[in-house]
Amino acid sequence: MIRIGIAVLLLSSFFHAQNPGGFEPASTNVWGAAYPRVDANGKTEFRVKAPDATKVQVNFWGNPKLEMVKQTDGFWTATSAPLVPGFHYYTLIVDGAEVSDPGSHTFFGGGKDTSGIEIPEHSSTYYLPQDVPHGAVREIWYYSMVTGSWRHALVYMPPDYDTQTKVRYPVLYLQHGGGEDETGWIKQGHANFILDNLIASGSSKPMIIVMAYGYARRVDRPDPDITGKPFGSPEMMKAMQEMAQAFEDDLTQALMPFVDSNLRTISDRDHRAMAGLSMGGMQTFQVTFDHLDLFSYIGGFSGAAGQLVLGNRSLDPKTDFNGAIADPVAFAKRVHLLWLGVGTDEPAMMHSGIVKLHNSLDEAKIKHVFYESPGTSHEWQTWRRDLKDFAPRLFP
Amino acid sequence: MIRIGIAVLLLSSFFHAQNPGGFEPASTNVWGAAYPRVDANGKTEFRVKAPDATKVQVNFWGNPKLEMVKQTDGFWTATSAPLVPGFHYYTLIVDGAEVSDPGSHTFFGGGKDTSGIEIPEHSSTYYLPQDVPHGAVREIWYYSMVTGSWRHALVYMPPDYDTQTKVRYPVLYLQHGGGEDETGWIKQGHANFILDNLIASGSSKPMIIVMAYGYARRVDRPDPDITGKPFGSPEMMKAMQEMAQAFEDDLTQALMPFVDSNLRTISDRDHRAMAGLSMGGMQTFQVTFDHLDLFSYIGGFSGAAGQLVLGNRSLDPKTDFNGAIADPVAFAKRVHLLWLGVGTDEPAMMHSGIVKLHNSLDEAKIKHVFYESPGTSHEWQTWRRDLKDFAPRLFP
Repeated sequence: MIRIGIAVLLLSSFFHAQNPGGFEPASTNVWGAAYPRVDANGKTEFRVKAPDATKVQVNFWGNPKLEMVKQTDGFWTATSAPLVPGFHYYTLIVDGAEVSDPGSHTFFGGGKDTSGIEIPEHSSTYYLPQDVPHGAVREIWYYSMVTGSWRHALVYMPPDYDTQTKVRYPVLYLQHGGGEDETGWIKQGHANFILDNLIASGSSKPMIIVMAYGYARRVDRPDPDITGKPFGSPEMMKAMQEMAQAFEDDLTQALMPFVDSNLRTISDRDHRAMAGLSMGGMQTFQVTFDHLDLFSYIGGFSGAAGQLVLGNRSLDPKTDFNGAIADPVAFAKRVHLLWLGVGTDEPAMMHSGIVKLHNSLDEAKIKHVFYESPGTSHEWQTWRRDLKDFAPRLFP
Repeated sequence: MIRIGIAVLLLSSFFHAQNPGGFEPASTNVWGAAYPRVDANGKTEFRVKAPDATKVQVNFWGNPKLEMVKQTDGFWTATSAPLVPGFHYYTLIVDGAEVSDPGSHTFFGGGKDTSGIEIPEHSSTYYLPQDVPHGAVREIWYYSMVTGSWRHALVYMPPDYDTQTKVRYPVLYLQHGGGEDETGWIKQGHANFILDNLIASGSSKPMIIVMAYGYARRVDRPDPDITGKPFGSPEMMKAMQEMAQAFEDDLTQALMPFVDSNLRTISDRDHRAMAGLSMGGMQTFQVTFDHLDLFSYIGGFSGAAGQLVLGNRSLDPKTDFNGAIADPVAFAKRVHLLWLGVGTDEPAMMHSGIVKLHNSLDEAKIKHVFYESPGTSHEWQTWRRDLKDFAPRLFP
């Protein structure tokens, strides 16, 4: 009865959505939620009920917090300056508690299910569903001997996968960023719609995309005790390296064999790519250069080559990338695509790190593609554009 | 950089999970979150950071709120009495703002992405992943001429779907409750694992399960204006009926043709079932009795036959169910299964309504199955058990 009552109340709000002053409920809202709402310039109004709170803020990560103002009805409201088009994570801070906005769907980022808002980019339809054949996204569960656990991954299958039952497809492994999970490329990134549209226009080959859960811990290793160890301490770095290695082992020893035996893949290196954003870009560089026998296309979206980007040392072509770039001619033959991307408005350390890597690769005569996303930061609009540029270069 | 920093902090918590006093982090937590945590009796500890709040509560819907206590470190804590095994929605109320717990994954319920906690049922493995062949769950998007919009649905494909490419399968349409959405039967209900296990043991036939989004609004109808109309008013009832009809039309005119042309279904009434929980049970009764040409198996899980269950009038076999039960012999021939279930601890109005319907059907000599889930309320543990009893009776 309780739930039926709730349903009725929600139906009421479902029928209530208004459109005052050109503001529309965000596409990322739960149904029936009138707030947050966005106008044609990306200006956004937020509203939340918190009758007994003394301070409520909207928190766009890495930006100054937006103060909300209490209204007489117990709701707090605030209007943002115009937001950059694309997807933005945000949270509300209610008397010190950082929580999601009940009006927004949640998206896994920052290590939790958190609010997000989509600001339309008026000229862009490439990441929206269009009247073209649609691939399906499937959830798979596989048992990993590496982690000793059931693991969940998402797989995009191109539109003709079900009907062309004799056709086998190349595979792109596509990784989320730190604090995100395997759902990010679909829910935040719209990778499925991007590929649907690219395939329909003939820009991309039909391909399978596998999105793995980017964290792993080996079942046969005790947890490292890093209690009280500071950020960047040797103990924490070691724990992170162990986790990165466990992910690499899970991907190559558990997930890839599962994918190749359960889906109609072409299971050789010429038909296998890997790319990832931020932490996923670093994972991509680690996994692919450890396994050039398995991969021949490599993409780093706002993240690549760990210390080379984030540290301050120079590229050493003889030893870096496991020596794979020591000979530029051999490298260009072996690696069909090395792709780097970054947003022009990313934090300076990330932007300059990727640019430096790009320049160093140029100096070392290593064939690669460098792409800058204009006006976007370390955010999903950058990575949607990355995928749109990257995917058409695969499996030509 | 920001996000990489976040990732590092999260890695730290990932390696920190402790196990004090027999309490384990709930399986529904985000990774690395030590709270909420559950002991062997279902007793649960909650903890949330809210340094500037003056009152924080845990809200289990329909139950008394649990007061949290502020600690000196700015965190609030509370310990619940033992919770019934299964999945429970909950929220936190921070100075009047009802929000999700950042430590929990979110699940769509009550019209928003909300927190949930899984309390293990120690003797039960039927809804957990086991070492058996696993089906895949796929997300589909279809364009509905009824609603004039792209709609999202989930589909479970049985384990051998990909390899037995000549085999066609019967289909169960399985609906969520009011305030929930198409993800509920997978994320909260574990329908995929339930079917994997039933199919592996030979108890259920392999089948496709389609889970639709249970809300719809016709593109060709103006929104009814129900501003200020009270609950139960004729205007609101009419709006709800329109929405129910739009859902029925979307399901039968858009989704079903999409499913039958894109998946290897057996597309006749003898191989098509529909069931749903709560609001989804009412929808099931509406859709199936309007379309006995399309369905021959019918399941109402804590919800069925609208006014007959929720109202106080008696069954009239001559006119109810569109007259389909006027002749018990003809009905038993035409409808292969009519199934009703309810939890013994559900709110009295729901429990007595379903029991009354069951008794009335008995009196009218209408063949049906009645199942009571012992000790559970209007909640997912009831509906998991319902599916476990219902699915093996399909497509014998």
